[in-house]
Amino acid sequence: MKKCDIGLVGLAVMGENLVMNMESKGFRVAVYNRTIEKVKSFVEGRAADKNIVGCYSIEELVANLAKPRKVFMMVKAGAPVDQLIEQLIPHLEEGDILIDGGNSHFPDTVRRTEYVESKGLLYVGCGVSGGEEGALNGPSMMPGGSPAAWEYVKPIFQGICAKVEDGAACCDWVGENGAGHFVKMVHNGIEYGDMQLICEAYQLMRDGLGMTPAEMHDVFAAWNKTELDSYLIEITRDILGYKDEKGETTVNYILDTAGQKGTGKWTAISALDEGVPLTLIGEAVFARCLSAQKPERVTASKVFPKEIPAFEGDKAAFIEAIRKALYASKIISYAQGYTLMRTAAKTYNWNLNYGGIALMWRGGCIIRSVFLGKIKEAYDKNPALENLLLDDYFAETMKTLVSSWREVVAYAVKAGIPMPAFSSALSYFDGYTTACLPANLLQAQRDYFGAHTYERIDQPRGQFFHTNWTGHGGSTASSTYNA
Amino acid sequence: MKKCDIGLVGLAVMGENLVMNMESKGFRVAVYNRTIEKVKSFVEGRAADKNIVGCYSIEELVANLAKPRKVFMMVKAGAPVDQLIEQLIPHLEEGDILIDGGNSHFPDTVRRTEYVESKGLLYVGCGVSGGEEGALNGPSMMPGGSPAAWEYVKPIFQGICAKVEDGAACCDWVGENGAGHFVKMVHNGIEYGDMQLICEAYQLMRDGLGMTPAEMHDVFAAWNKTELDSYLIEITRDILGYKDEKGETTVNYILDTAGQKGTGKWTAISALDEGVPLTLIGEAVFARCLSAQKPERVTASKVFPKEIPAFEGDKAAFIEAIRKALYASKIISYAQGYTLMRTAAKTYNWNLNYGGIALMWRGGCIIRSVFLGKIKEAYDKNPALENLLLDDYFAETMKTLVSSWREVVAYAVKAGIPMPAFSSALSYFDGYTTACLPANLLQAQRDYFGAHTYERIDQPRGQFFHTNWTGHGGSTASSTYNA
Repeated sequence: MKKCDIGLVGLAVMGENLVMNMESKGFRVAVYNRTIEKVKSFVEGRAADKNIVGCYSIEELVANLAKPRKVFMMVKAGAPVDQLIEQLIPHLEEGDILIDGGNSHFPDTVRRTEYVESKGLLYVGCGVSGGEEGALNGPSMMPGGSPAAWEYVKPIFQGICAKVEDGAACCDWVGENGAGHFVKMVHNGIEYGDMQLICEAYQLMRDGLGMTPAEMHDVFAAWNKTELDSYLIEITRDILGYKDEKGETTVNYILDTAGQKGTGKWTAISALDEGVPLTLIGEAVFARCLSAQKPERVTASKVFPKEIPAFEGDKAAFIEAIRKALYASKIISYAQGYTLMRTAAKTYNWNLNYGGIALMWRGGCIIRSVFLGKIKEAYDKNPALENLLLDDYFAETMKTLVSSWREVVAYAVKAGIPMPAFSSALSYFDGYTTACLPANLLQAQRDYFGAHTYERIDQPRGQFFHTNWTGHGGSTASSTYNA
Repeated sequence: MKKCDIGLVGLAVMGENLVMNMESKGFRVAVYNRTIEKVKSFVEGRAADKNIVGCYSIEELVANLAKPRKVFMMVKAGAPVDQLIEQLIPHLEEGDILIDGGNSHFPDTVRRTEYVESKGLLYVGCGVSGGEEGALNGPSMMPGGSPAAWEYVKPIFQGICAKVEDGAACCDWVGENGAGHFVKMVHNGIEYGDMQLICEAYQLMRDGLGMTPAEMHDVFAAWNKTELDSYLIEITRDILGYKDEKGETTVNYILDTAGQKGTGKWTAISALDEGVPLTLIGEAVFARCLSAQKPERVTASKVFPKEIPAFEGDKAAFIEAIRKALYASKIISYAQGYTLMRTAAKTYNWNLNYGGIALMWRGGCIIRSVFLGKIKEAYDKNPALENLLLDDYFAETMKTLVSSWREVVAYAVKAGIPMPAFSSALSYFDGYTTACLPANLLQAQRDYFGAHTYERIDQPRGQFFHTNWTGHGGSTASSTYNA
């Protein structure tokens, strides 16, 4: 019997859909699931008459694979991945390849790559984005791990992944050990940001302009024909137009409490660890936390009753200003996300291809957009670009957006409509473009109370000075006390 | 020879000053330092003719202590603490007390408490704030750990700590294991926030109103006689008035790049872990990161040249509006910090005394202020207060501040002056007081692409619904894919 090209463990929705996708592209797939009833129901159901081999043990799975064996693990992130690795290793041979396609935290993938390589095997940690639909029809795939594995998994990954208009695959080798899962984590953080930005635009129209879902549906439909053309704008359009069987707009009945855990949070923590100001995604994560405090918010809304003034002015012009504010904020979010990747690449010795990453995100995944094509162009033009805002195209674009952006944020500030992501992005832009921030005062404070010392503008960098501000207390530099 | 009341290991500035402080309050102190030359120079210098015993080995230190022995460790946070604990344990007896007075990360203190208790000893992790001056003259002290230790260290701690006007000690038992270091961490996070708020007020006056340091000195001097009366406002006043021997204002020559590491970052990470929107401190940490990108900012300032319009209006009135904006933002920061403590207390089973914490911060530490007295009153009145904004005093106060706050932030937004903390605080306020946030749309998006399900406003909480938004793709709930 012909051996299989790849094996997959974990037949939840994502796993099943990836198998169906691989099979449809001509790959023969062996499947296994811990709860073996799932194997049976899959091979007798969706997988019936397909080039798919159901296996009822790890041994059987491994026995069905062509060498070097490739095992795609689609199990819950965390301990289940480690357990599955331990179960698989005794049955594998040198050069076989373990692939983790779940949402693993990148430090785990760094650790697992080292461990699995120490056993003579190869490891791939692959971010997979696109949800169920993407898994079935072409996800964005971000593989990293053992470089020697890439030539073996490349035909399968680039066979099943999303393609952009010109046929380019939304999958390429990201880098060593945890690089793939890191980039997937940043993708998810950016997804948090993009979703929050759309929500703020929606809230401005709903609460500020008093627009109906149908009117907002039309706005998002129109926006999707502009630079904002993207999957998330598209589904927002559809959501705002969606009515249930009674003719009621469903989104109006959904409770405004969002969950947050995992990758958005990890992205913010990684930015804090790397010292990169990733303010927009940070605010987006916190906005979800605040949304979850529903009962408290209801109480607070009674303590501080709000009267949002009726909008007076040119509504259509203001909607266009909101679009520009959204676009400007989105540029900031990607600028921040790319800065995080650049900084982490130095920390972890990854040689990231920034244009390639934009291409991987260009199709298949949740944040796919036309906009990412512009980012690819910027990094193709200058792979060492320090910040997206310094690219000619984005700099010129930003200049056309800034005044509308200020108008919208100032309006929201006066009206009492919360705009954490729009306004945080603007603060970042204004900070990033300010040669002299007030941190001179902050350094003076730190030197005053903790003798932390400071650098001077009239002296070379790297020379540190202390002032005896109080006239007493000595001139020691701080040691154990670090505020 | 009379035994010592306490031993201290680690004679850096903070350690030395704590010893001098303890001795001045009548306690006999044994001291030891790994580099024993420091012991010699200390006992022959500052400690000469004092009730201080220099020891040149751990054995000698321990032999000099009255039982139960109390050893105050003032060494660098991290591995040095663990190493010192290992060195000390073999020489100690059941009931002896190890005290870590450094800036340890609270999870380390949780772990060490359990470990040291398993050896039959008691452990205290004590946050100490106030810098060198505080250590010498009365710091704020936040002890947690083994409850049985408190009665033994209480006389010393409450003897040396800061006192408020009525004589109350700025030190009380915080809670079990890592509670003291946790509260100290939040203190430091709040310190980051307070400093950033002052910097933003300074930048508005400097860059927006074109004021001189001397003029701003006068403003901060006046503010220090209002509700803002605090150590940080006081030192800002002094810094702005400080001139070097050439008559130049020193703060004007300090480079605007601030360091960030340790406790501010930990506070933001803890908030992300606990799901608490701690936006202001998060922005304050990121503002330090952005300040550090000086060369990039200088480049960006040329790509996006800034022309801050000359201020037209009543300058004095606007300065008062800035003061109100600062005060309002500060209330938000403390409201967020207290929410983090309340949430973490549930996670870690700490029975925190929130009024007591305000009292501990009331004097001695960097964030000491009159304002903390009002927070103490709020929690004394209602120890279960959900959010500072829901306290009558703060709610009424906030209502008197909001319109000025909006005016100032809107001005900065239009002028291009970055106000990350002022505006983030305002977004939080507006979000917290909004009964219906736009997270209904966000939940619809998550359900659309990931079948994450949602709750409905017309159904009880805890029931989850899924919509087949696209008309295809099935109605499964998400499993392994978690965006």
